[in-house]
Amino acid sequence: MSHPHPDLPVPPALAPDTLRIIPLGGLGEVGRNMTVFEHSGRLLIVDCGVLFPEDHQPGVDLILPDFDYIRDRLDDIEAILLTHGHEDHIGAVPFLLREKADIPIVGSRLTLALIEAKLKEHRIESYQLEVKEGQTERFGPFEVEFLAVNHSIPDGLAMAITTSAGVVLHTGDFKMDQLPLDGRLTDLNGFARLGDAGVDLFLVDSTNAEVPGFTPHERDISAVLDRTFSAAPRRIIVASFASHVHRVQQVLDVAAAHKRKVAFVGRSMVRNMGIARDLGYLRVPPKTLIDLKSIGDIPPEQVVLMSTGSQGEPMAALSRIANRDHPAISVEDGDVVILASSLIPGNENAVSRVINGLTRAGATVVHKGNAKVHTSGHASAGELLYAYNLVKPANVMPIHGEARHLQANAAIAVSSGVPQKQVVLAEDGVVVDLAEGVARIVGSVPCGYVYVDGSNVGGVAEASLKDRRILGEEGFISVVVVVDSVTGKVTGGPEIHARGFAEDDSVFDGIRPELVKAVEQAAEGGNADTYQLQQTIRRTIGRWVGGRLRRRPMIIPVVVES
Amino acid sequence: MSHPHPDLPVPPALAPDTLRIIPLGGLGEVGRNMTVFEHSGRLLIVDCGVLFPEDHQPGVDLILPDFDYIRDRLDDIEAILLTHGHEDHIGAVPFLLREKADIPIVGSRLTLALIEAKLKEHRIESYQLEVKEGQTERFGPFEVEFLAVNHSIPDGLAMAITTSAGVVLHTGDFKMDQLPLDGRLTDLNGFARLGDAGVDLFLVDSTNAEVPGFTPHERDISAVLDRTFSAAPRRIIVASFASHVHRVQQVLDVAAAHKRKVAFVGRSMVRNMGIARDLGYLRVPPKTLIDLKSIGDIPPEQVVLMSTGSQGEPMAALSRIANRDHPAISVEDGDVVILASSLIPGNENAVSRVINGLTRAGATVVHKGNAKVHTSGHASAGELLYAYNLVKPANVMPIHGEARHLQANAAIAVSSGVPQKQVVLAEDGVVVDLAEGVARIVGSVPCGYVYVDGSNVGGVAEASLKDRRILGEEGFISVVVVVDSVTGKVTGGPEIHARGFAEDDSVFDGIRPELVKAVEQAAEGGNADTYQLQQTIRRTIGRWVGGRLRRRPMIIPVVVES
Repeated sequence: MSHPHPDLPVPPALAPDTLRIIPLGGLGEVGRNMTVFEHSGRLLIVDCGVLFPEDHQPGVDLILPDFDYIRDRLDDIEAILLTHGHEDHIGAVPFLLREKADIPIVGSRLTLALIEAKLKEHRIESYQLEVKEGQTERFGPFEVEFLAVNHSIPDGLAMAITTSAGVVLHTGDFKMDQLPLDGRLTDLNGFARLGDAGVDLFLVDSTNAEVPGFTPHERDISAVLDRTFSAAPRRIIVASFASHVHRVQQVLDVAAAHKRKVAFVGRSMVRNMGIARDLGYLRVPPKTLIDLKSIGDIPPEQVVLMSTGSQGEPMAALSRIANRDHPAISVEDGDVVILASSLIPGNENAVSRVINGLTRAGATVVHKGNAKVHTSGHASAGELLYAYNLVKPANVMPIHGEARHLQANAAIAVSSGVPQKQVVLAEDGVVVDLAEGVARIVGSVPCGYVYVDGSNVGGVAEASLKDRRILGEEGFISVVVVVDSVTGKVTGGPEIHARGFAEDDSVFDGIRPELVKAVEQAAEGGNADTYQLQQTIRRTIGRWVGGRLRRRPMIIPVVVES
Repeated sequence: MSHPHPDLPVPPALAPDTLRIIPLGGLGEVGRNMTVFEHSGRLLIVDCGVLFPEDHQPGVDLILPDFDYIRDRLDDIEAILLTHGHEDHIGAVPFLLREKADIPIVGSRLTLALIEAKLKEHRIESYQLEVKEGQTERFGPFEVEFLAVNHSIPDGLAMAITTSAGVVLHTGDFKMDQLPLDGRLTDLNGFARLGDAGVDLFLVDSTNAEVPGFTPHERDISAVLDRTFSAAPRRIIVASFASHVHRVQQVLDVAAAHKRKVAFVGRSMVRNMGIARDLGYLRVPPKTLIDLKSIGDIPPEQVVLMSTGSQGEPMAALSRIANRDHPAISVEDGDVVILASSLIPGNENAVSRVINGLTRAGATVVHKGNAKVHTSGHASAGELLYAYNLVKPANVMPIHGEARHLQANAAIAVSSGVPQKQVVLAEDGVVVDLAEGVARIVGSVPCGYVYVDGSNVGGVAEASLKDRRILGEEGFISVVVVVDSVTGKVTGGPEIHARGFAEDDSVFDGIRPELVKAVEQAAEGGNADTYQLQQTIRRTIGRWVGGRLRRRPMIIPVVVES
């Protein structure tokens, strides 16, 4: 997977008055969003996020975009522009700044505050430029206008990037909630103005392109929360993403209306809401917020816990509460737990385990399956049509999504009247050039998964992951023999150690004499090297385990010569 | 997990005129359904199914009910009654018959044909009694009336079990489709007649109790298939469960109407549809069915492939087609793939990978997320209310579902007027006695997960699964040293082998001298035993790997004395 498009040629040298677009992440997957724009030898980066691993990538902490394409050209980078503060858009910035710390970071106030918290953990001092909607800045050959967009975190920005090759509008992640909680609408007037002047290429968030209709208003959730709070006889626990300031705002407001106190639970919830409050994005009603430590002093029917763990993460507060091993919080009959969040694909079983644990403990669990306690942060198909009709782009390139989402978004663009051949379906590593009003694929660059794995960044290959998958499914068996290098006799072992399939090593007693015989036969005459003896062991034990136990563990033969 | 309810007492000796109900699977999980009924020293078993492992049970093939409670009493078993032919109801029968082959198996015609195919694979000859709806049979102290129920496989049965303790009605898996494809309605007249006469305990399928309203008609899918077939310019692939005879029937009928030929793809699809056709459950329109081998002779726009693999199973036909490594079938621009199936929780990522692969290859993928191409086999909340109002049970025990589903079903029973205290919420291993019109929990029996793992049935403990999880996340490192038992000197090694985290063993070069030093220091004086030397190695390498690589692999120290 180091080069996903070997069929495409190496892109030609960049022509004058041409804008090159190189997506290094987020096209063909949901996460690690990163797009590089290149013009007259200079680079501009929009977003630099992480992807969270799936179950076929065991033990991996994070997945980064592949920086290979820009690694030799770090001095050419004008800036990293950040559309908003979610991990899949900012999480890889510290890893890029490790390679060159003085690349300027540009973003809105909340976005910069959130990335600053991350950079501190990595002990990186960075150069930052705070921007606002309506503002225009020049970065080398790139002139960038920032526009407000509405999303599931405040202060999101779209970006109109103008060069001598034309105007590109990049939506970032966005939706078009027409009754936004903070009154900050997606700037459709700006979209219309740019559209009237002529947008040459429109890069559009595809995440919800498969969803028909319109994403429900964020504030519709308040009514459901209000009803649930009214009916709750005892304590209420609400779980959501730790960055969803608007969702937390609604919980605070409804709690205050019901004269309940709110405590934040979970490290990232406490930290992010601290930042949001300090910067004025979160307005805490008077006397509503309390410290988790003091909830014991308040009757349960006056308490709301605002918690992380909505995805069933095993170490998060909510899972520990469901497993009855949280040090401070236990759930009892009559408690109500609200999962006010989406369910990220792959987390279904983990979340179901949490719901079952809470149910067994006596709680009523309210979730998006049985109540409208969540709405998405992304524009659905109906909204995307509005966007295409307002912007009237010459060319379209769907971004942010798996192949199915990009394709669905392309179909929406075509249905709005964009000619099929002017819709560019590209995935990570595919290079698109915009020149003279036409966008087209001109080649591809290597673009692999870069795994963060303990202290190792980028060193873990697919081979190690394959080993982990085998080890995790089948376990392993190691066989150690000491062979006298002169006589070829086995003088120690076989020591057999197995993990993951045999409860008791005594099961191997029967195979030891056979192993000794096989090794000594192979060593006879003294012309077998260590590798050959290892192969003998591998074959002998592999056949036996396969036949007798019907398993195919990883086999590690060790031959020590004495 | 060998005893999920240690807080409950050992149940008392069974009193006369009392019916004891012991659920050994399916209560607290979706799968491995099995309930034991006990009366005057005799046992009757309803269903004996398997559960499929989740991702925290790596490498496990199947999970069986725990037969411990009945193992010493196999001679007391009157019969195994099977409600229908799905794996989660019949899959464990061969494993029980391995312990005693002559326990009679009782079921409808299709159910027996499906279990017979499984028993043949296990080389078991069994005693079978075929029954039909409307029939009543006596098994020792148990009189059982069989009633028709509608489900996602034909020929399902509910069972009314009468003993001197009263009447128990067990729904099996069921829904109440009022326009069933085969005209075979769930026998609500029978439910009503039993209800009027008095049902003492009602055991009710909980799978869809959280779903409001009514499960859509199976035949509503035909119209969607018809529209999709009309619009499809080229080949059509439909994937569904290999046992869903009615779904396949609809595909055959729609294909015939569009003058397309159908080929079955996948071993279980071919086998099950052969059985269903032979027994008259599947009616193949004339000249519609062709062999997969001959699809090359027919224009793509006249072909339908009816395939397995709707859950993204990596080895099934559909996944291989999506990965472009199927030997006979490739997908091209204009092909349409219909996933006419549910999405079992936990399979989302696998199915999404299949959808993305097919999309990249040019296919349009129709699935339950974007069209009504699937309906469930289980009664939703609205149907359950009808059932409760018809049966008017004295006591209710929700069965078949996770804790959340059982709880939701209990709430429906209560809302229909069953007093809360007469609704028994029990999970696997919880023992319920019915006597004098009252059902209540009287204790519990050990009831664990029994893993089938290669040739090993029941021998794999949680410890092995924990080892696999660690191996799969972190990998392992083995260190072999040969120590001279007299001098305490290291005479061979350290041989270091790591898998799953270090791409290159040379990373360990630096630690070898330290290991030798640590072992020789510990061995000095000759009073360190092998275990102590192993601990020395474990500590030394563990600290180094943790500090240097930030990983915590499984460590296997091997000390060979020479």
